Amino acid sequence: MASLRHLLGIEGLNPVTATSLLDLAESYALLNRSGKTQRDLLRGRTLINLFFEDSTRTRTSFELAGRRLGADVVNMSVATSSVTKGETLLDTAATLNAMNCDLLVVRHNRSGAPHLLAQKVSASVINAGDGTHEHPTQALLDALTIRRNKGRISGLTVAICGDVAHSRVARSNILLLTMMGNFVRLIGPPTLIPGGIATSGVTVFHDMEEGLKGADIVMMLRLQKERMTGGMVPSSREFFAYYGLDRKKLAYAKPDALVMHPGPMNRGVEIDSDIADDAARSRIQEQVEMGVAVRMAVLDTLARG
Amino acid sequence: MASLRHLLGIEGLNPVTATSLLDLAESYALLNRSGKTQRDLLRGRTLINLFFEDSTRTRTSFELAGRRLGADVVNMSVATSSVTKGETLLDTAATLNAMNCDLLVVRHNRSGAPHLLAQKVSASVINAGDGTHEHPTQALLDALTIRRNKGRISGLTVAICGDVAHSRVARSNILLLTMMGNFVRLIGPPTLIPGGIATSGVTVFHDMEEGLKGADIVMMLRLQKERMTGGMVPSSREFFAYYGLDRKKLAYAKPDALVMHPGPMNRGVEIDSDIADDAARSRIQEQVEMGVAVRMAVLDTLARG
Amino acid sequence: MASLRHLLGIEGLNPVTATSLLDLAESYALLNRSGKTQRDLLRGRTLINLFFEDSTRTRTSFELAGRRLGADVVNMSVATSSVTKGETLLDTAATLNAMNCDLLVVRHNRSGAPHLLAQKVSASVINAGDGTHEHPTQALLDALTIRRNKGRISGLTVAICGDVAHSRVARSNILLLTMMGNFVRLIGPPTLIPGGIATSGVTVFHDMEEGLKGADIVMMLRLQKERMTGGMVPSSREFFAYYGLDRKKLAYAKPDALVMHPGPMNRGVEIDSDIADDAARSRIQEQVEMGVAVRMAVLDTLARG
Repeated sequence: MASLRHLLGIEGLNPVTATSLLDLAESYALLNRSGKTQRDLLRGRTLINLFFEDSTRTRTSFELAGRRLGADVVNMSVATSSVTKGETLLDTAATLNAMNCDLLVVRHNRSGAPHLLAQKVSASVINAGDGTHEHPTQALLDALTIRRNKGRISGLTVAICGDVAHSRVARSNILLLTMMGNFVRLIGPPTLIPGGIATSGVTVFHDMEEGLKGADIVMMLRLQKERMTGGMVPSSREFFAYYGLDRKKLAYAKPDALVMHPGPMNRGVEIDSDIADDAARSRIQEQVEMGVAVRMAVLDTLARG
Repeated sequence: MASLRHLLGIEGLNPVTATSLLDLAESYALLNRSGKTQRDLLRGRTLINLFFEDSTRTRTSFELAGRRLGADVVNMSVATSSVTKGETLLDTAATLNAMNCDLLVVRHNRSGAPHLLAQKVSASVINAGDGTHEHPTQALLDALTIRRNKGRISGLTVAICGDVAHSRVARSNILLLTMMGNFVRLIGPPTLIPGGIATSGVTVFHDMEEGLKGADIVMMLRLQKERMTGGMVPSSREFFAYYGLDRKKLAYAKPDALVMHPGPMNRGVEIDSDIADDAARSRIQEQVEMGVAVRMAVLDTLARG
Repeated sequence: MASLRHLLGIEGLNPVTATSLLDLAESYALLNRSGKTQRDLLRGRTLINLFFEDSTRTRTSFELAGRRLGADVVNMSVATSSVTKGETLLDTAATLNAMNCDLLVVRHNRSGAPHLLAQKVSASVINAGDGTHEHPTQALLDALTIRRNKGRISGLTVAICGDVAHSRVARSNILLLTMMGNFVRLIGPPTLIPGGIATSGVTVFHDMEEGLKGADIVMMLRLQKERMTGGMVPSSREFFAYYGLDRKKLAYAKPDALVMHPGPMNRGVEIDSDIADDAARSRIQEQVEMGVAVRMAVLDTLARG
């Protein structure tokens, strides 16, 4: 496949590069289950996890991905960083780059921060979530989970439900799923679905019954109250009544529809515990597992690129 | 030895499994001193340190133990975890488990938390301290330290002194020491010794002179003011006068009695600096050293189990 | 070279030992660029980063240095340490030492803390910055950067500018640079230059034009407002006007003078962005790169010692 220099977003991938990443990730998923390792692939390479926002799962997932490939992984979180001394984002990145860093994983609360860094450093930059913009490895792991379960990642109807407005996960998923030829339905209250988001292959619904009808995949989003201001914050109870996924609403989708969630879940807000823990329908744990595999594929591909 | 799936407490071990762990730990202690390593034993295995309470020594001890056996070790502390986003303990554990985690070391302020996790994950769970319940690796490292110095871990008189009520260390030590056939004496003020704790092999004293008489081992506990409420908190000065170990009180024990403390010490509260730093009597540094060795033995045993 | 037991300061080195460290660091710098590793050198050794003050660059630099040599590296920061439980500095160090720690890197806000530790532990102690006292690896990396660019590290005129009073970087640089036979000029307002600092080979200036005249190297210091009290804090604007390095002031130095800064920079306070980012004059990124190489040389030398 064409060499990839950075992974800043799904924007920048095409169906061929995306499929290559998924294929490689699939092989790493098998390797991880077997406990076998590929320590020589990134031996001598340095991966720095530069996180300006907390995240258990994403940081750990990248850390494990890097270590399983033999890289030296160093974590850098805001709380312990020089940012508190007033250093600029770019100076921090330039400093890490000068330490002969090969792979720089960045999470930042400002949209576009990883793109800015990518222009300044020689390391490959991986966007691990920037503001409300993109979270490309999440979309890739979602696609891999779907493909493993449905046998394909095209021609499917995927309903993305809830707080679309504040979700970089939704944005990256919309880009990847439509690029691969799926039908995306966005379901949520008008306040949580940005205007003008409905493009080719994307339809907006404000009613769960209507939107879930015929869906192969029901992808729930985390209600991100921490990103909302005053009057906009819906009550959890009311939100659950209208948009929370319970068994009754799930019945509107196809009988074999699968449920996904990027985590961490607000149980009883956007998803009922009964559904989240239903091994027959929920693929939430598999998403986490695929997360490590997808990140191994991304690191491997960028390091060769 | 019979295969061990988790290490949730001393409860669950028997004299044979405990002795096996101590024997294996002894061989790791020698290996650590020589600087030799056993990197192949846990190569490709993932150990996650999931700490909901801070702890320098225990976290570092498990981290070093895992690394010296070649495992990938990832630290996860509350401050940087998704718990702040409201995720439940079980969801956090399920997430880590899905990353193909083999060994999950858990410290939590609620008694029973590791047991709950053990029911939900496929990883082996090691209790690194849960509430006021158990801290099994501490009891094992204490037993190993005693055995190295006294040549046996049975038939000894061990005095455990101070804040027994708030101490999971005391609880695990009582279980292990009595199981191995030692005599345990608990010494402390009535407010810091739980009623009904005196069982077979355990005697309660409220006076240091009386309790220390004939003791082979004097095990001091940390006065855990952070776990006490209002009126219960003793003044440090008064506590030291009655129950703090100084040279005069130590003279009540056997002439060759050894002093232990799980750390971190409150010097001048439960123990006098003069005693803590007395190389002839104090085994506090050796306890720390044995901690790494015991944890290597536990990780190794669970990984094979 | 004579074996080195600890690196507590430049005081304690001589021109021969310093040159050996720089030569070894130079070879590591080449190795780092090539992506080759020397994993066997410190295999089985344990390095603990004990940081009582936050520092992105220094902590990460030591972490990478240790890992690239194959050591097990464990980070310990104040926020997650037992210090919050009231344990003394010495008890913390003794505990880490008992875990068979070979190399103990210490940063502390009290001058002399690493020296105190070095008397108590069997590990080799490396001072990573103590109060306003010393920061020896910073001086070594500065010397290496200068030597690479000027072809020698003697007979040069080095201007150290700004907040000398609060700078352990300045202190270590003065010691190393004069020891190697360079001329040091200290430039700053009287309030930021300690009285009595001018010794053999060191001259004090309060005017940038006068002080920079004929300088080969212009070393800017961070204005450490966080260490200043009330009335002493200069306004950033006023400070920049008199002592901030811009193109006009740089013109007072030699035409081929190079600019250095230990980071993190206060852009627009002690240094103009235009100068900081000028690839022809600024060696700030190279300093960071040499930092890892110098720390590898120090760890390697102490581990053999």
